[in-house]
Amino acid sequence: MKKLYVVGLGPGGREYMTGEARAALEDSELLCGYTVYIDLIRADYPDKEILTTPMTQEIERCRMAVEAAEGGKTVAMVCSGDAGVYGMAGLIYEVAGENSPVEIVIVPGITAALSGAAVLGAPLVHDFAVISLSDLLTPWETIEKRLRAAGEADFSLCLYNPSSKKRADYLKRACDILLESRNPENACGWVKNIGREGQEYKVMTLAELREEQVDMFTTVFIGNSSTKFLGGKLVTPRGYERKMK
Amino acid sequence: MKKLYVVGLGPGGREYMTGEARAALEDSELLCGYTVYIDLIRADYPDKEILTTPMTQEIERCRMAVEAAEGGKTVAMVCSGDAGVYGMAGLIYEVAGENSPVEIVIVPGITAALSGAAVLGAPLVHDFAVISLSDLLTPWETIEKRLRAAGEADFSLCLYNPSSKKRADYLKRACDILLESRNPENACGWVKNIGREGQEYKVMTLAELREEQVDMFTTVFIGNSSTKFLGGKLVTPRGYERKMK
Repeated sequence: MKKLYVVGLGPGGREYMTGEARAALEDSELLCGYTVYIDLIRADYPDKEILTTPMTQEIERCRMAVEAAEGGKTVAMVCSGDAGVYGMAGLIYEVAGENSPVEIVIVPGITAALSGAAVLGAPLVHDFAVISLSDLLTPWETIEKRLRAAGEADFSLCLYNPSSKKRADYLKRACDILLESRNPENACGWVKNIGREGQEYKVMTLAELREEQVDMFTTVFIGNSSTKFLGGKLVTPRGYERKMK
Repeated sequence: MKKLYVVGLGPGGREYMTGEARAALEDSELLCGYTVYIDLIRADYPDKEILTTPMTQEIERCRMAVEAAEGGKTVAMVCSGDAGVYGMAGLIYEVAGENSPVEIVIVPGITAALSGAAVLGAPLVHDFAVISLSDLLTPWETIEKRLRAAGEADFSLCLYNPSSKKRADYLKRACDILLESRNPENACGWVKNIGREGQEYKVMTLAELREEQVDMFTTVFIGNSSTKFLGGKLVTPRGYERKMK
């Protein structure tokens, strides 16, 4: 059967890839992806055929990958982070359709919720929700509803795509919604350029997060109401500390 | 500085570990962890000192790891999946305390939400929430509140610890809460023994999930209201399909 891997590369350099991801790339004849992600791995696979498309060309990129696999090639579509978290996994299934002759294999990777949480300490170690603030494909009303629900039910939160040039005030709007149910002192943080050159992080209160200017390479974390600052990091208790005392 | 790695091994065999995780184990003199997880890697590190504790001894396990690091050893505390998702990352910070001389380094791994989603297709490719059904450390009222909120706000859901001997009906109770806001036809699935021998998966409706008997080695997925069955897998649309038509 023709095989199409959809591979999560993790946050940056090759040290964050799993063995399974490396094996999938090794096994493939054609590597497809957004130019920036392909550039992360291109040097490791000088003999592979490469096919890149710019951002916003996701449908075309997936069509080319599926067609190449249908034509008999073993193909890897690469994604940053995890293929199954705001990645290409879903669109590949949709483009391939119900009766595709291609075997689709999703290879998970370390998504920014996990890699960013590791930099900040342990903000997501209890129940959490992941929300993208991008309204390119999702109505803002749906995003607001999810923010409000996660705020009220005291989830820790991880926010993807917290800002862009066209959406400079979206993080502020998200914080305002969370402040309806959360204390302004609620512990928060962000991580920028996770796993790449120029990695930075900062911890702060929810009131302070509201005033932060973040960019599209930043992932934002909001603890639950019990999350605390500990040694400059964020730690969400799981309930063990009741036993410890 | 004395170093204490908290390392997520991923779902099972060594092919799911990242390069960063392998380097952390290599760099450590002492490997600590729950017996079952240490057994997954023991054979690869025949010359390392090993310290295992049984389940439910989490506080003692973390104390021993922190003390060994304070004593000058480079230590790795290993966790299944990701150290920062229901793993030991938080407790290690709590045990080490505010002014610890130990440098704590969290090394992320592939948690069951990601590895299980990859087996099922792409159920979590849009906004999602992760909830543990274990009420050992969390009041059931909190779990119910989060289930209800995630159900109403149309998150995809991943449920950890869906069942145990003492909690045989918890998944049914969770499904009943979700059925307050979701259609009985809502697409769902589960994966058992992810990345290990005997891996199995099944897709089904929410009404059918309510009748499933799952065990503690199973991770449960509930799609959002748009998630569909496609080629025997679960696929949550992201909005691209509007562009495709």
